[in-house]
Amino acid sequence: MTGPRNSDLRIDLSRLLNRISTLATIGAIEGGGVSRLALTEDDGLARDHVCALMRDAGLSMSIDSIGNVIGVRAGRIDGPPIMIGSHIDTVRTGGRYDGNLGVLAGLEVINVFDDHEIETDYPVAVAFFTNEEGARFAPDMMGSMVHQGHLPLDAMLAVEDTQGVRVADALQAIGYRGDPSADGARVRAFVELHIEQGPVLERESFTIGAVEGVQGISWTEVTIDGVSNHAGTTPMALRHDAGYAASAIAVFVRGLAERFGGSQVATVGAIDLEPNLVNVIARHARLTVDLRNTDDERLNAAETELTDFIDELREREGVTITTRSLARFPPVEFAPAMIAAVERIATAQGHRVRRLPSGAGHDAQSFAPNCPTGMIFVPSVDGISHNIEEFTHDADIEAGANVLLALVHQLASAD
Amino acid sequence: MTGPRNSDLRIDLSRLLNRISTLATIGAIEGGGVSRLALTEDDGLARDHVCALMRDAGLSMSIDSIGNVIGVRAGRIDGPPIMIGSHIDTVRTGGRYDGNLGVLAGLEVINVFDDHEIETDYPVAVAFFTNEEGARFAPDMMGSMVHQGHLPLDAMLAVEDTQGVRVADALQAIGYRGDPSADGARVRAFVELHIEQGPVLERESFTIGAVEGVQGISWTEVTIDGVSNHAGTTPMALRHDAGYAASAIAVFVRGLAERFGGSQVATVGAIDLEPNLVNVIARHARLTVDLRNTDDERLNAAETELTDFIDELREREGVTITTRSLARFPPVEFAPAMIAAVERIATAQGHRVRRLPSGAGHDAQSFAPNCPTGMIFVPSVDGISHNIEEFTHDADIEAGANVLLALVHQLASAD
Repeated sequence: MTGPRNSDLRIDLSRLLNRISTLATIGAIEGGGVSRLALTEDDGLARDHVCALMRDAGLSMSIDSIGNVIGVRAGRIDGPPIMIGSHIDTVRTGGRYDGNLGVLAGLEVINVFDDHEIETDYPVAVAFFTNEEGARFAPDMMGSMVHQGHLPLDAMLAVEDTQGVRVADALQAIGYRGDPSADGARVRAFVELHIEQGPVLERESFTIGAVEGVQGISWTEVTIDGVSNHAGTTPMALRHDAGYAASAIAVFVRGLAERFGGSQVATVGAIDLEPNLVNVIARHARLTVDLRNTDDERLNAAETELTDFIDELREREGVTITTRSLARFPPVEFAPAMIAAVERIATAQGHRVRRLPSGAGHDAQSFAPNCPTGMIFVPSVDGISHNIEEFTHDADIEAGANVLLALVHQLASAD
Repeated sequence: MTGPRNSDLRIDLSRLLNRISTLATIGAIEGGGVSRLALTEDDGLARDHVCALMRDAGLSMSIDSIGNVIGVRAGRIDGPPIMIGSHIDTVRTGGRYDGNLGVLAGLEVINVFDDHEIETDYPVAVAFFTNEEGARFAPDMMGSMVHQGHLPLDAMLAVEDTQGVRVADALQAIGYRGDPSADGARVRAFVELHIEQGPVLERESFTIGAVEGVQGISWTEVTIDGVSNHAGTTPMALRHDAGYAASAIAVFVRGLAERFGGSQVATVGAIDLEPNLVNVIARHARLTVDLRNTDDERLNAAETELTDFIDELREREGVTITTRSLARFPPVEFAPAMIAAVERIATAQGHRVRRLPSGAGHDAQSFAPNCPTGMIFVPSVDGISHNIEEFTHDADIEAGANVLLALVHQLASAD
């Protein structure tokens, strides 16, 4: 490795912030947010823009069959690169930082290496992955999961959005159908800088989060069929109330999370009743249960308790209850050496750093089983994300990007 | 009074059933139900049809300013009539018996008097009242409440449906704007035959219900504002979850009804969450609470407990909760002599009869404060109503109409 010492390198904050602002104009929505669902026309324009920046930086570009874009800066030694990656698709009413920060900060790392004419030992790559959000096509993290062999390419290309548009055709329409020869390219190590999307760092005045792993996720759709009847004339003892049963499950899972403690979270975010009228006992309810834990055994236990409660409720209320798994990801642990390196670098750069798990899924978790993988978190103001009010202070962006820079510089060294 | 003895009179079941069937063809929906919201074109056609039947029976017709239709058969003595009344509007997916039975059975009573050339001492009237259901215009029981002076005419004529159509214009459009000289005509006594709309009579094998009164009704709309956030990244202790708060209220009111016992019922029939997604903590919730009790003091106590729980929940969850009363009717008691007369006649006709309160509101309750008022219930199969599956056996219709006939015959006698 040639060039300045690790500790002397710093990113150019104004260059990075300008790029974040510019990218946010594509799919901009009122109030400062961004709406750029995966593989829409706006996603295509944003891809074109970021590809142009990557080409300007002299990266060797490739696009694979699921539309993942990878730009590689050569190192002294041939072989798999140190990859910096994230995504540029957003939810329907999202912010400008989620995903985008990780990609543009990766590009900034490349620019800094170029500015200082640094030749790394290993190649360094910047990547953005298709449909991380899963807001248009299910499941989320589609591109990185296909890249790392956890999801089958053909099945994912056939996934349809709610309008019946297939992933393959959406890729074709925006010119990102890609080249099979680029599929599943090997990676030496993977690093992702991301906003926390939760309130922990800000609330405890930490600037950097050394992410320990990603919580296991269990999503269940619960469907309840009771008997619709008059709210005034039906004695309590004769009711089969789908609305009550839905609410009872929501209250149960709250209590479950409180009893379990630790990293356990539990959320009923969606409830739909039919006919949904003031004076009619609901005949039908649909709700979703989102359970997460960093410990898979605890997550299994939470699922079992939910099942037991539903069995008891079904009997007690005289309703039909069916469940369907919408998603089930086991917890992911990042490489201990990566976590320690993030802590060490952040501390050396004068930042308060803490270890924490990620409650949200990220592209990095696709890489964790296959290569040393780490994540750096920066604080989200008020913990808000997936919302046009998503915001991270400039100073925190600078801190996170500098930790990323130093970490990649170190990983790219053969020493 | 001239003609046969009370106990010899019987209604013509096939005539009554045919009329119920014919009326049900107007606004018929698949599966045997009826959709005939108040003051729609179909309601206009149904009104025209029933008015034609009333005119055929020689009744003196009047239509008042809110569109209530009254047909009077003269008696030996001038003065206020014995009135048989109900409604012919339905909910959006209703049945053929709710309301319609009471009006057509009233007409059948007139026909039987004519068949037997009976001259009653007092006049006998048949009436149907505008917008009893309240499914298009709020509040329900609008026509009878205006008729009996409990609601102001002008304000009710200005009420708009969700499309912005005013009651006055809807009346005009179907030709039932009526004549102010007919407003608030006096009534000697009021009787309504209605399906129970609940399961009590059928479950306990009674044919006739002698209705003691109508439960007091308290409808509250509860609006909750919390903080939308990521379901994975937001620790349980930092949540302000509008969806959880809504569910907690639904579970609380169920427990309240069980603790109160007696006639207390409590229902959360409607819950709406925003954004209503699996992985987002709800920022906003709207729900309705329907509380009913025959005892106004107990109903007040239930309302107070709900308020106290909401105060505690607001504090505990850190959410904003506002409430709005959608309706509040005190309990209504029917005349003891009427209740006793229904019991006596039903028993004499060989039917099992029990006293019970009505959980639903009915036009009869508008009359109860102003004149002797009574109601006769017949069983609803499985307690189902406000549903296309609403059904009452022919034999029970016959029994109820014969009790109505004998009761009206007796009330119309000056002896």
